[in-house]
Amino acid sequence: MVVGKAIVAREPVHSLTPNWSLEEVDVHSPGEDEILVEMRASGICHTDLVLTSVPAGHLGIAYPKVAGHEGAGIVRSVGKNVHTVQIGDPVLLSFYSCSSCQQCEASNPAYCKDFIRENYGGHQKRMSVRESGEELWARFFGQSSYAQYSIVSEASVINAKSLLERDEELQLFSPLGCGFQTGMGVIQNTTNAGPADAVLILGLGAVGMGALMTAKIRNCNTIIAVDRVKGRLELAKSLGASHTLDTSSPDFSTLDEAVRQLLPNGVSIVIETTGVPLLIEQGLRSTHTRGRIVLIGIPPPGYRMSFDVAEQINTGRSIMGCIEGDAIPKIAIPQMIKWYREGRFPIDKMITFFNATDYQQGLDGMRDGTVIKPVLLWTGQ
Amino acid sequence: MVVGKAIVAREPVHSLTPNWSLEEVDVHSPGEDEILVEMRASGICHTDLVLTSVPAGHLGIAYPKVAGHEGAGIVRSVGKNVHTVQIGDPVLLSFYSCSSCQQCEASNPAYCKDFIRENYGGHQKRMSVRESGEELWARFFGQSSYAQYSIVSEASVINAKSLLERDEELQLFSPLGCGFQTGMGVIQNTTNAGPADAVLILGLGAVGMGALMTAKIRNCNTIIAVDRVKGRLELAKSLGASHTLDTSSPDFSTLDEAVRQLLPNGVSIVIETTGVPLLIEQGLRSTHTRGRIVLIGIPPPGYRMSFDVAEQINTGRSIMGCIEGDAIPKIAIPQMIKWYREGRFPIDKMITFFNATDYQQGLDGMRDGTVIKPVLLWTGQ
Repeated sequence: MVVGKAIVAREPVHSLTPNWSLEEVDVHSPGEDEILVEMRASGICHTDLVLTSVPAGHLGIAYPKVAGHEGAGIVRSVGKNVHTVQIGDPVLLSFYSCSSCQQCEASNPAYCKDFIRENYGGHQKRMSVRESGEELWARFFGQSSYAQYSIVSEASVINAKSLLERDEELQLFSPLGCGFQTGMGVIQNTTNAGPADAVLILGLGAVGMGALMTAKIRNCNTIIAVDRVKGRLELAKSLGASHTLDTSSPDFSTLDEAVRQLLPNGVSIVIETTGVPLLIEQGLRSTHTRGRIVLIGIPPPGYRMSFDVAEQINTGRSIMGCIEGDAIPKIAIPQMIKWYREGRFPIDKMITFFNATDYQQGLDGMRDGTVIKPVLLWTGQ
Repeated sequence: MVVGKAIVAREPVHSLTPNWSLEEVDVHSPGEDEILVEMRASGICHTDLVLTSVPAGHLGIAYPKVAGHEGAGIVRSVGKNVHTVQIGDPVLLSFYSCSSCQQCEASNPAYCKDFIRENYGGHQKRMSVRESGEELWARFFGQSSYAQYSIVSEASVINAKSLLERDEELQLFSPLGCGFQTGMGVIQNTTNAGPADAVLILGLGAVGMGALMTAKIRNCNTIIAVDRVKGRLELAKSLGASHTLDTSSPDFSTLDEAVRQLLPNGVSIVIETTGVPLLIEQGLRSTHTRGRIVLIGIPPPGYRMSFDVAEQINTGRSIMGCIEGDAIPKIAIPQMIKWYREGRFPIDKMITFFNATDYQQGLDGMRDGTVIKPVLLWTGQ
């Protein structure tokens, strides 16, 4: 057993407001297929906020828990069935998949039959609050990486020994395991976008930026980036967006009108990362015939999208859902690192590091849009 | 100018009830890109009913008009720019496309920018009522084939000279240009279904049967056929459906429950040809993760489908619209004829011929489900 700090999420008191606090926790020994990781860094993803702000019971979620699912750290001990890493290896962490269900066997681990239970729910008996002995739900996304030490499933681990050129890159690459990977995957896997495509990207968080950089790499003919924060739109432009639309501008009327002023026929692909109902509906209308909208951003609970079926038939449009960019982390993460080294996936321009004790600053920066990807550092706690 | 009989559709008096009558019409000479066809046969498709039962103005529809868009006949005269057929050639007819817009150039003529205007609307100055001189809207789907003689766009014509082994085959192949082609295309083009797919087919009209035969040809691992008419379900079984579900059975509860009794994980593809809102919604829920539902059947006017966005994201499902099976008629029709000759596309089991004067019997048979594909014969008028 080791002792360390962790961000403990308790059931929200005010609906939809995460209730986090940094506490001292006891971390148990890893099971047969598990690894004790000393975290170096963990990115904050919007999903951490969503899945710590819903009431207990919804999607199998229970409290208190330790969230965090863009972790990176050093292996400190391994269970007896672990074969992919050794003590001392640096690791990058991503979501859990069982590797044996129909979808895993078909190379679609993000649609693993156990995805929701294992990633959103997790397991007990891995961590407890030091002072009170309170049992915690851990192994969130196979990792619960908002912790100095955590028990990680081997399924969530990518051995980074051969991927790093410098030690500090472990911190830098930590957020590749979810947000950027989702954006990359939705372009590469879900839509297979290419030179014939005009892509509209709604929201320039890590998912939107990942999609933008990948659309540029794949030579999409037009890339329209949409956000409400000027700094993000400027960065998008420098990364290869052919057009930007500022929804906070007084000139902005509706998305579909603004898009059709740029492209009268509309776009072929919409990547929706905001979860804003109005943008979802106007996004669909921004596509041309045979166009596709991919829904990624989680909307307010209970929101149902509706659309005219006859119009959908006549236009041949598709409305797709997508999780984790349908990516295989062991392939996607080395791919993104390769692109980063080639200067085509400059995630360093999107990351702001915070000491883990200052997690609230990271959350505030996400909320006001000044921070694209906050990464918490667990060194020196 | 020639004189012949035609089914004239006037604006419906009772909402959603077609107002047809067989009348004598004057048919003008073909324009430069047009062909005068003496019809032998014309299939009745549900779309003829929908597009003659909506009020004028909706989708650019005007009355009085001559519908019919599964025609077959003999070329009787040609405009000076017509190159693909000569006088005396037998022709099979399909929808109009412009051949020069972005979608046509990308080999997706069913999504031609002029599709709605040309196919649903049409043109005047081609036909008029003999007795009253009343001007008619013609060239419906480039053909207005509910007529003994009609002016047809060259774009709608497939030269059948090398496709026929016997003259009577012209009548038999007449309905290939829409319903069967749509069913074939949704499997082959829209979904590219294959051995890894479990396909659920909702509704066993010509579209559903075309999809069923094509799913069998492409070795889909499971084919579940759904209808309310026993005779159709029996035919589906003989054509290769692995399971049938009778929605009129007292044992039938909901579609998704019935499907999951057969396949606990659900199907990978749903082909929705009924337009029934309840089946559309339960159809989506019958798919497994990464499953797709393709909407083809026209629902009641104004119907909007709604779905839970978070569930769509977590399941990675797709909701697609599809028109004409995204088919290229000049390729699809010879393909279906080849399969027919191989015994794998036995449309003769689904067709009932009626003398054109008895069109009402054909409509009644469609309504009560005893007739899958009524084909009107224009010989011997």
